[in-house]
Amino acid sequence: MRFDEAYSGNVFIGTNSDFPESRVVLYGMPMDWTVSYRPGSRFGPARIREVSIGLEEYSAYLDRELHEVKYFDAGDIPLPFGNPQRSLDIIEDFVTKLLAEDKFPLGMGGEHLVSWPVMKAMAAKYKDLAIIHMDAHTDLREHYEGEPLSHSTPIRKIAELIGPENVFSFGIRSGMKEEFEWAKNAGMHISKFEVLEPLKEILPKLAGRPVYVTIDIDVLDPAHAPGTGTVDAGGITSKELLASIHEIARSEINVVGADLVEVAPIYDQSEQTANTASKLIREMLLGFVK
Amino acid sequence: MRFDEAYSGNVFIGTNSDFPESRVVLYGMPMDWTVSYRPGSRFGPARIREVSIGLEEYSAYLDRELHEVKYFDAGDIPLPFGNPQRSLDIIEDFVTKLLAEDKFPLGMGGEHLVSWPVMKAMAAKYKDLAIIHMDAHTDLREHYEGEPLSHSTPIRKIAELIGPENVFSFGIRSGMKEEFEWAKNAGMHISKFEVLEPLKEILPKLAGRPVYVTIDIDVLDPAHAPGTGTVDAGGITSKELLASIHEIARSEINVVGADLVEVAPIYDQSEQTANTASKLIREMLLGFVK
Amino acid sequence: MRFDEAYSGNVFIGTNSDFPESRVVLYGMPMDWTVSYRPGSRFGPARIREVSIGLEEYSAYLDRELHEVKYFDAGDIPLPFGNPQRSLDIIEDFVTKLLAEDKFPLGMGGEHLVSWPVMKAMAAKYKDLAIIHMDAHTDLREHYEGEPLSHSTPIRKIAELIGPENVFSFGIRSGMKEEFEWAKNAGMHISKFEVLEPLKEILPKLAGRPVYVTIDIDVLDPAHAPGTGTVDAGGITSKELLASIHEIARSEINVVGADLVEVAPIYDQSEQTANTASKLIREMLLGFVK
Amino acid sequence: MRFDEAYSGNVFIGTNSDFPESRVVLYGMPMDWTVSYRPGSRFGPARIREVSIGLEEYSAYLDRELHEVKYFDAGDIPLPFGNPQRSLDIIEDFVTKLLAEDKFPLGMGGEHLVSWPVMKAMAAKYKDLAIIHMDAHTDLREHYEGEPLSHSTPIRKIAELIGPENVFSFGIRSGMKEEFEWAKNAGMHISKFEVLEPLKEILPKLAGRPVYVTIDIDVLDPAHAPGTGTVDAGGITSKELLASIHEIARSEINVVGADLVEVAPIYDQSEQTANTASKLIREMLLGFVK
Amino acid sequence: MRFDEAYSGNVFIGTNSDFPESRVVLYGMPMDWTVSYRPGSRFGPARIREVSIGLEEYSAYLDRELHEVKYFDAGDIPLPFGNPQRSLDIIEDFVTKLLAEDKFPLGMGGEHLVSWPVMKAMAAKYKDLAIIHMDAHTDLREHYEGEPLSHSTPIRKIAELIGPENVFSFGIRSGMKEEFEWAKNAGMHISKFEVLEPLKEILPKLAGRPVYVTIDIDVLDPAHAPGTGTVDAGGITSKELLASIHEIARSEINVVGADLVEVAPIYDQSEQTANTASKLIREMLLGFVK
Amino acid sequence: MRFDEAYSGNVFIGTNSDFPESRVVLYGMPMDWTVSYRPGSRFGPARIREVSIGLEEYSAYLDRELHEVKYFDAGDIPLPFGNPQRSLDIIEDFVTKLLAEDKFPLGMGGEHLVSWPVMKAMAAKYKDLAIIHMDAHTDLREHYEGEPLSHSTPIRKIAELIGPENVFSFGIRSGMKEEFEWAKNAGMHISKFEVLEPLKEILPKLAGRPVYVTIDIDVLDPAHAPGTGTVDAGGITSKELLASIHEIARSEINVVGADLVEVAPIYDQSEQTANTASKLIREMLLGFVK
Repeated sequence: MRFDEAYSGNVFIGTNSDFPESRVVLYGMPMDWTVSYRPGSRFGPARIREVSIGLEEYSAYLDRELHEVKYFDAGDIPLPFGNPQRSLDIIEDFVTKLLAEDKFPLGMGGEHLVSWPVMKAMAAKYKDLAIIHMDAHTDLREHYEGEPLSHSTPIRKIAELIGPENVFSFGIRSGMKEEFEWAKNAGMHISKFEVLEPLKEILPKLAGRPVYVTIDIDVLDPAHAPGTGTVDAGGITSKELLASIHEIARSEINVVGADLVEVAPIYDQSEQTANTASKLIREMLLGFVK
Repeated sequence: MRFDEAYSGNVFIGTNSDFPESRVVLYGMPMDWTVSYRPGSRFGPARIREVSIGLEEYSAYLDRELHEVKYFDAGDIPLPFGNPQRSLDIIEDFVTKLLAEDKFPLGMGGEHLVSWPVMKAMAAKYKDLAIIHMDAHTDLREHYEGEPLSHSTPIRKIAELIGPENVFSFGIRSGMKEEFEWAKNAGMHISKFEVLEPLKEILPKLAGRPVYVTIDIDVLDPAHAPGTGTVDAGGITSKELLASIHEIARSEINVVGADLVEVAPIYDQSEQTANTASKLIREMLLGFVK
Repeated sequence: MRFDEAYSGNVFIGTNSDFPESRVVLYGMPMDWTVSYRPGSRFGPARIREVSIGLEEYSAYLDRELHEVKYFDAGDIPLPFGNPQRSLDIIEDFVTKLLAEDKFPLGMGGEHLVSWPVMKAMAAKYKDLAIIHMDAHTDLREHYEGEPLSHSTPIRKIAELIGPENVFSFGIRSGMKEEFEWAKNAGMHISKFEVLEPLKEILPKLAGRPVYVTIDIDVLDPAHAPGTGTVDAGGITSKELLASIHEIARSEINVVGADLVEVAPIYDQSEQTANTASKLIREMLLGFVK
Repeated sequence: MRFDEAYSGNVFIGTNSDFPESRVVLYGMPMDWTVSYRPGSRFGPARIREVSIGLEEYSAYLDRELHEVKYFDAGDIPLPFGNPQRSLDIIEDFVTKLLAEDKFPLGMGGEHLVSWPVMKAMAAKYKDLAIIHMDAHTDLREHYEGEPLSHSTPIRKIAELIGPENVFSFGIRSGMKEEFEWAKNAGMHISKFEVLEPLKEILPKLAGRPVYVTIDIDVLDPAHAPGTGTVDAGGITSKELLASIHEIARSEINVVGADLVEVAPIYDQSEQTANTASKLIREMLLGFVK
Repeated sequence: MRFDEAYSGNVFIGTNSDFPESRVVLYGMPMDWTVSYRPGSRFGPARIREVSIGLEEYSAYLDRELHEVKYFDAGDIPLPFGNPQRSLDIIEDFVTKLLAEDKFPLGMGGEHLVSWPVMKAMAAKYKDLAIIHMDAHTDLREHYEGEPLSHSTPIRKIAELIGPENVFSFGIRSGMKEEFEWAKNAGMHISKFEVLEPLKEILPKLAGRPVYVTIDIDVLDPAHAPGTGTVDAGGITSKELLASIHEIARSEINVVGADLVEVAPIYDQSEQTANTASKLIREMLLGFVK
Repeated sequence: MRFDEAYSGNVFIGTNSDFPESRVVLYGMPMDWTVSYRPGSRFGPARIREVSIGLEEYSAYLDRELHEVKYFDAGDIPLPFGNPQRSLDIIEDFVTKLLAEDKFPLGMGGEHLVSWPVMKAMAAKYKDLAIIHMDAHTDLREHYEGEPLSHSTPIRKIAELIGPENVFSFGIRSGMKEEFEWAKNAGMHISKFEVLEPLKEILPKLAGRPVYVTIDIDVLDPAHAPGTGTVDAGGITSKELLASIHEIARSEINVVGADLVEVAPIYDQSEQTANTASKLIREMLLGFVK
């Protein structure tokens, strides 16, 4: 044992300590200040890292081990409590720098609004960018009770940024009537209720394109992810979500970044949600990064 | 803001404050004093209301919004603790008055025994009444350890009131051998284990008839409804239960009343059960009331 | 039973339905978006009301019953998630109107920052206003990581508004060195660790003056209030806090308003914190309003 | 290992398997059907037994070991759910038989109403019987919302049975005004808020008399007993309750029976309440039985 | 009521008090000292017994009642904390004695390592023994961080004892790459991810042979069994596990012993895992013992 | 933001990244494999670090800030599950090396047995070493059910190592009769039940001597530390424990090392125990290290 090494601390299992040689950077965005129902996702990234010690480093699904992908855990981005605009600016700046160094950004939320500044950075780098969005909720509001910066608005903003025809939502089971109508009129793709089957149809159409993948853990049924802000019955199983990640992994799209958001540990005394999220992160790492 | 308005308080989201013009009356029956295993469903209705603020007012399944059905939340019926007979009399009286004013009763339990007095009131008004019963348990005992008023007896009583041939149970996976035999001999319908497929067969046979729908939340697998008195493995998913409600909504039966019972919040730290129940109530409202 | 009455819903036990004749208005301020550690106090007021049904209406400490004080439960003030400034403006406006109608404001938080706009409204009405502040934390920061609107700043703002010499803090056991030094230099009163004994010394000096009382539930030891954002060991007991409220009740100061903040139910599976808070509200009502 | 022995199962630590030679009989009264607020104490006795394995068999307070008192754990008395009258009759019959065999009855609740039939059996055997009652609540109602058999009425019934002048209540902090007035007029002793100091004054007056001791776990502050139906802030500590038991143990009164009631495990995820209760049972055994 | 009977205590519902005439012996192995992630399964057997009172005695799946199989609950085997080797020796000795009396051993864990000594005893009695293993994890390590006695090694040891070709694993979704490769090279059967369908293919090949069945509760998805040490997303449902047990029951294999391991109650506040386990035990009893 | 820095991860707030210049080394000993009742303290150190972000860096008790003491968080020592002897050897080796570099060791448990190898290392360095031990339990057994390496034995081993007359135990309220007798005969100091007052008497006698301080969190009452393996009613408050630490800080003894053990987070959904432990660590750092 050498005492002069910095203690690695609470990092995702198998992480690499060398930033320059890492292909992927894993980072937390511990923000939950615009959520309308149950807050707490600020503690999601830390808990996902903590429970990752329960994981095997090998994926029996992908026949690949964590050491085959070099990744660096950059920790949680420090964000100012209660100030959404400054928080989003800091995230955008962070990811822009990551992309300048040609890293694959793999983010952990925090509320879903954090995907908005990430996509601004992504879109500045990648032409013809598309997004695959798995979620229980449309997240297509223009504003929420007057606030344009809200956990209910990120996909709308992203659609306006990269064009609604480049947004592909799956598993959606909740939203306002106006949101569904806006999506329909705007030419955006929404698969209601299901993820895997419609994904199989869409993936070939995206072959070769750069795609960002954003997964709200509440696309899972509450049985599979009780630890999230807005649980919504009628969701998919963790087996289906894993299969969907593997379907993307085997497709010909070019995944250029991804995130997993809305894990709120306090609502799940069993910690199953954080454990499931840590497995999903492992599969995203091994499946999305070639 | 006007201070001279009564505060609406903890009512189901989107409720109407005007009783006379409401088509539906939502009410709680906070009784759990005859349960043999784990009590606590007395707090079910209050918690279902509280978490309903996490719901959207639009159903993406039924393409309908809550404002399209006028409903009034009458709160919890005050019931005397530990006195089953008086409690049941009060419920029967309450529902009888509702029916006299031509309201659609939508009840929230409480233990399942509360459906018995409701059915007495329903049967007094509707000729040729049938009941659709979704539950893990038969609830067909004559008495439970000598007590005829027990959470294990309501469907037996109902069968004796409206005739066993008018009782249709689905999803049943627990009961005494004698209960299954009684049902068989009496000509009552029991679909073991499954709900959706057998329901599709039965619904056409009930076309045009007045039907009451009673759902015990424990028809769901414990994974989907841990917050209930008697969890019983091997149940259906919340997706299947939603689909079953929608199947009824699209059928030609005439739903004349309904209830959802046995939500016991204390056994579910994540509150997923109450959240799921509030979504089920929304779908029952939007699907059952034309 | 009359169906044409609005259901009173989830209101504090014994509340009055008539606003004009009420002496006190009870209201919730469900805001928690600037907290730095654990959010969740937005659900405090609702849960305090819910569990108040477990209370007796009589205080054995004060020999007084709830019907002796007329109060109206105005519910929770609707506040925009993630927008501190607008939320505070709405609260200030609400309380200003209450004061214009000569009501005694009794608020429930929510994070402690909500006391700041309330005090702005109070100070506009009452000359020579003082504040009694019970808390584990100084709350005297000028800003928190750059944010002037933070749960760590309200007492500083209040001190600057009404003069530090009119601020009396008790039970304080956490803060930055700079905060304690600022208080000392500014002539503000801080009693470290204890509440009851130093309060007995201060109260006579405030005789006859209008005083606002703000209680952060975390002045209690975590054993007595686990359900709060920032638990801090070494606090007082609920018996001591009750005695402190009764000491104020028996004093000659003129309490003109009060609040109880930072109850965050999700961190307390036993619900003891909400139950304790509802008892504290009852004693504040019966003790502070003559 | 001998397989032909009956498995001792879940019994209180150190229990004796021989009924005839046992001086004390420990038994559970798993009834909670008349409680007005939070049910669940039916599971109290089983959990107290289960966690007793964490106890030492020696009391450092009394310098006595469990093997010095022979006791038999008779398990939980089977009671009919939802039928208070029959349940109470069964309990009375059980204790009457115990007393006929000259056993010391040590009961575990269950709701406090179970002490009423026990006292009927005790009073039939012992002349000049007094009762020491430690509780947060008066329990002196004549009826509760019309029900004479309620968890709010046992001490009233007992007072009417053995004479109010023989009832000594300690630690009381909640009740209706009428209850306190009735007690005062009837000549019954109530020590508000405190237990130990007033007990020291009363005990000498009871010297030589047969006394039954009933302890409602909610005499403890919620911090020390969150797992109970009606938590009530401002209570005593577990250290004070232990000292009170030891004060009785060292006094000259003749304890002839005792119970500990209202442990409701589900409200205490940490199980501290059940663990504390099992220690209290050990001290009652070692301290009350000479 | 006879007081001179030993209290049956916390035993599995419907258990027989007569060892000699019992066909099955149910016993707990409360050991969890080699687990690498979350301990707590030592309390599994006790809690499974406790919640079994919520079960019906009749299986609607198998049309059989508990009284049709005589079984004796031998309680938990006393094991020395922190000493794996001695614990395993005690278990082996216990089961060897059971087999000498021709009992069917039905064990409850405890960590999975407890199956290793049981299999040593089984293999000593039964020639041509095979094992059916349902689990999320391979458990095929040779050692874990240097320790050969680890919860990660039992199936490897068993494979070396009875021959890898006699080991049939189902539902496996986690392990090291080396473990999967060892299994493949050794000729051991592993069905990844699924249980029911591959089981249907394997069962006919085992017809007539003596088979031991070991079920790790984590073969279930975390949604269905949150109360276990190492939750692992992507598992099967409780409905599928029940169907797999029934498939075995209807097959022509000769089940000669079985266990259910890794229930850790503390991670499941709802107690759904223990309730599910108690139902599984009932179905194993009724299905495996002819 | 520089990406080429190793992420500091989950370390105690304010920790120093430079080992050589640090005066103190903080380290975790995540071992719980010999506990007889409830395991889980292996996760104590990680959770104490995680919640330390809720702490202020200033102590209002000691008027000192964390930056005034340089300390390095060495993380958790990797220990082999289920192998007590090897685990203890690793700890002894670790601390021996720390002492060779003249560091002040500040350990976090883990079960109390971890203090034994630490004391072996300490005693090898310091002549005339004494130990101050705060605990609910004597921990003086020679062995526990035959195991000499048990969480019930560390103080006995330490007493035999440094001489019983150099062991000073406080707050003890549980143990076997034999343990108390052994202590008495051996000339070891035990203060039953209380800590602060007897400590004031003992400290002057130890003036100038090197002293190790070991605190078992269960010296606190369960109300103040529900998250521990063996909760034991009748303990001291967190206010008293803080005062005891400060009493030592102000004394003339020479504290040369310390630990805080037995925090088991899973038994405390509120996380108050971990939060309290992190405050105690801060006060030990600021008070014990001159």
